[in-house]
Amino acid sequence: MMDNTGIAIVGMGTVGSGVAKLLLQHADRTARHAGRNLRLAHAVVSDISKPREIELPDGVLTDDLQRVLDDDSVKVVAQLVGGITNARSIMIQILDAGKDIVTANKALLAEHGPELFEHARKLGRSIAFEASVCGGIPIITTMSQSLSANQIVSLRGILNGTSNYIVTRMDEEGAEYASVVAEAQKLGYAEADPTFDVDGSDASQKLAILAHLGFGAKVRWSEIPRRGIDSINLDDFAFARQMGYRIKLIAYAALGPDGLQLSVAPMLARIGKPLAEVRENFNAVSILGDAVGPVFLHGQGAGQMPTASAVVADLIDTAVGRTAITFQTLELWSKNSPNIKFDQPGNLAGRFYLRFNVDDEPGVLAQIAGILGEFGISIASVFQHASQASKQSGVPVVIMTQVAPESSARNAVEKITQMSSVRDSYERLRILE
Amino acid sequence: MMDNTGIAIVGMGTVGSGVAKLLLQHADRTARHAGRNLRLAHAVVSDISKPREIELPDGVLTDDLQRVLDDDSVKVVAQLVGGITNARSIMIQILDAGKDIVTANKALLAEHGPELFEHARKLGRSIAFEASVCGGIPIITTMSQSLSANQIVSLRGILNGTSNYIVTRMDEEGAEYASVVAEAQKLGYAEADPTFDVDGSDASQKLAILAHLGFGAKVRWSEIPRRGIDSINLDDFAFARQMGYRIKLIAYAALGPDGLQLSVAPMLARIGKPLAEVRENFNAVSILGDAVGPVFLHGQGAGQMPTASAVVADLIDTAVGRTAITFQTLELWSKNSPNIKFDQPGNLAGRFYLRFNVDDEPGVLAQIAGILGEFGISIASVFQHASQASKQSGVPVVIMTQVAPESSARNAVEKITQMSSVRDSYERLRILE
Repeated sequence: MMDNTGIAIVGMGTVGSGVAKLLLQHADRTARHAGRNLRLAHAVVSDISKPREIELPDGVLTDDLQRVLDDDSVKVVAQLVGGITNARSIMIQILDAGKDIVTANKALLAEHGPELFEHARKLGRSIAFEASVCGGIPIITTMSQSLSANQIVSLRGILNGTSNYIVTRMDEEGAEYASVVAEAQKLGYAEADPTFDVDGSDASQKLAILAHLGFGAKVRWSEIPRRGIDSINLDDFAFARQMGYRIKLIAYAALGPDGLQLSVAPMLARIGKPLAEVRENFNAVSILGDAVGPVFLHGQGAGQMPTASAVVADLIDTAVGRTAITFQTLELWSKNSPNIKFDQPGNLAGRFYLRFNVDDEPGVLAQIAGILGEFGISIASVFQHASQASKQSGVPVVIMTQVAPESSARNAVEKITQMSSVRDSYERLRILE
Repeated sequence: MMDNTGIAIVGMGTVGSGVAKLLLQHADRTARHAGRNLRLAHAVVSDISKPREIELPDGVLTDDLQRVLDDDSVKVVAQLVGGITNARSIMIQILDAGKDIVTANKALLAEHGPELFEHARKLGRSIAFEASVCGGIPIITTMSQSLSANQIVSLRGILNGTSNYIVTRMDEEGAEYASVVAEAQKLGYAEADPTFDVDGSDASQKLAILAHLGFGAKVRWSEIPRRGIDSINLDDFAFARQMGYRIKLIAYAALGPDGLQLSVAPMLARIGKPLAEVRENFNAVSILGDAVGPVFLHGQGAGQMPTASAVVADLIDTAVGRTAITFQTLELWSKNSPNIKFDQPGNLAGRFYLRFNVDDEPGVLAQIAGILGEFGISIASVFQHASQASKQSGVPVVIMTQVAPESSARNAVEKITQMSSVRDSYERLRILE
């Protein structure tokens, strides 16, 4: 006879229904992999009359969280309610009732993670959160267990599937931003209001969680400098591709001599390198460890079953006792981490892609090169593109720089755009090495 | 005051020295990540007078395994002796002495894994083996923990860095096999006798371990049908590339309606897909789970520090108690697995790349197409390549087939090569979807 572990799901949206499917339709397999039965005792929803995509056993569906809190047979709760305030309150009630938590709510962790983790630890409880970042990609387990012999040196991620779908279509088909967004909405890859995905907020929340994990950095996601993909000019995809690069929305963390650098922004990834080849709505993370070297993980970052797969793996880990150990070592990990000094964004050195639209007249390029030189920026290559509408929009000049501090690049660009022969439209993007 | 866990290393070759480096030079960091000190108590070697690349504290170096066995403070042993017979005997002695094991010895596990695992379980001990497959890539943890909510449907891996280095150079530079092998030997990517790497044996050993883990299949590595990269014609790289593919040495496992299919062979991977873009001496694994979908992992599959990184992560996992839990659930996983019926290799359906060298005369192609039709094989595309030496070697005809059983493809090819207008040299390679 196998032991039983009582499970509750709070929130039966897309992911919650997927978790119920795995627990109910694959109970044998889950029991085999866990060495115990994971019995779905309760599924808490706000409206029990709403039609469900999966049929639950009698007595499981309820709109009363208290039933979960009062049920001593329930040891682990999949907390899958979105948002912040209500989700936080539910989380605290579950912990206070002596139950461990598995969650996919990245927004909540990015905002209140350290506080909730501390509360759980005080009570001797655990929070597992593999599903909160990159759905089906085992990034949390990899960073907190598999790379534990390493100092993580840097991390570059494509953490938002919506943005990656959009830039893939723009890059490969030359499709306009607005039409691709509409297409993504039709396919269910983008929300009716896609702002949070396309402006880099979602990626910043995930980066905040990974930075906490990998570098012990307790950072609020809103403090991370960010730029989305909603302001990239279609031409820049083509210009970058001609130079051998693709534009991707990159979540970036790197330990430098002056501290930890964090940012979310469109950057150029070299064609043929793993990150550049991440297509459609896939996610990926590239980690550099000082012992292991580069490790690259790629998979479905969202969607019902990939995310449910991560939630159920965490339910199993928690039921068998692995999460309790990991949660404890992670505490020590982040508690004793060397102080993370956030580097000023301007200090992050790198190569840059610069594009200006200029009047087609002699001496302009020399003047631009002169200003770059003034700021100590060397030029690696220059392409002047013929433009069909050169009178109106000017001739595009694309410059790839050598390594320079971000502040120098920014200041040089500012001065260049003040030239009378340079139009207002310009671009400055970091090139990933 | 932090707790201490005594550690011993048996075998101070490349990997053993790397493990010692991490334990000695990064003791603080390891303690922080483990919540306890991992103290290197003994390093067992066969010749203590040999010069070492790392200086060990006084009293640590010894040629007497008994010192480890007798030391009750030693809880976990990194068993890094290669080969089979001696390594197996050391392993059993360590387990019998009541100590847990971490190992990187894939040959031993591929040959005696099930027996050693059972012995460890009887004694209440554990064996951790992340480092035995793909060095720094966390494939074991991913399969045994992160994907525990899934039935693994298929697995495709580039598991041998030496072979991948060689096919990369042949593909990208058109370099001859023999000269690339010599270059790989100079770079330390290939052994003086590279047979084991290039004939698919090494990849088969790793596949045997992954098949045990992912499908509960207790298979001896030597039973897996295999072909290496040592017999691929340089022209086929170019022909495949013109069709949009690269030839890679693929370790392949797939659950079909008739059972589990295992094989190691050069196959065609579509350019732009993650596996095709794995270059140089890197390793990668692409797993398809029924819930999570495709997950792809990429990194350094060998080398001192990537492998040492995996060993030390396992030492930490074992010291904190995670391995004991995983080792127990893994037992249940494979014990209760549905019986795996090994499918006949011939039943594995797929698309095929066929290349024949034929006389340049009318009707040959029609005759070849006729034979393929006889065996129920449809043609997706045909290219007839002009050859400069057509008189001697014939004109290369390359055919991409539609999906067909492997046995049909094999039989058709056999019949085609019996045609008087078809030369002896031919190729038949599976195309990965």
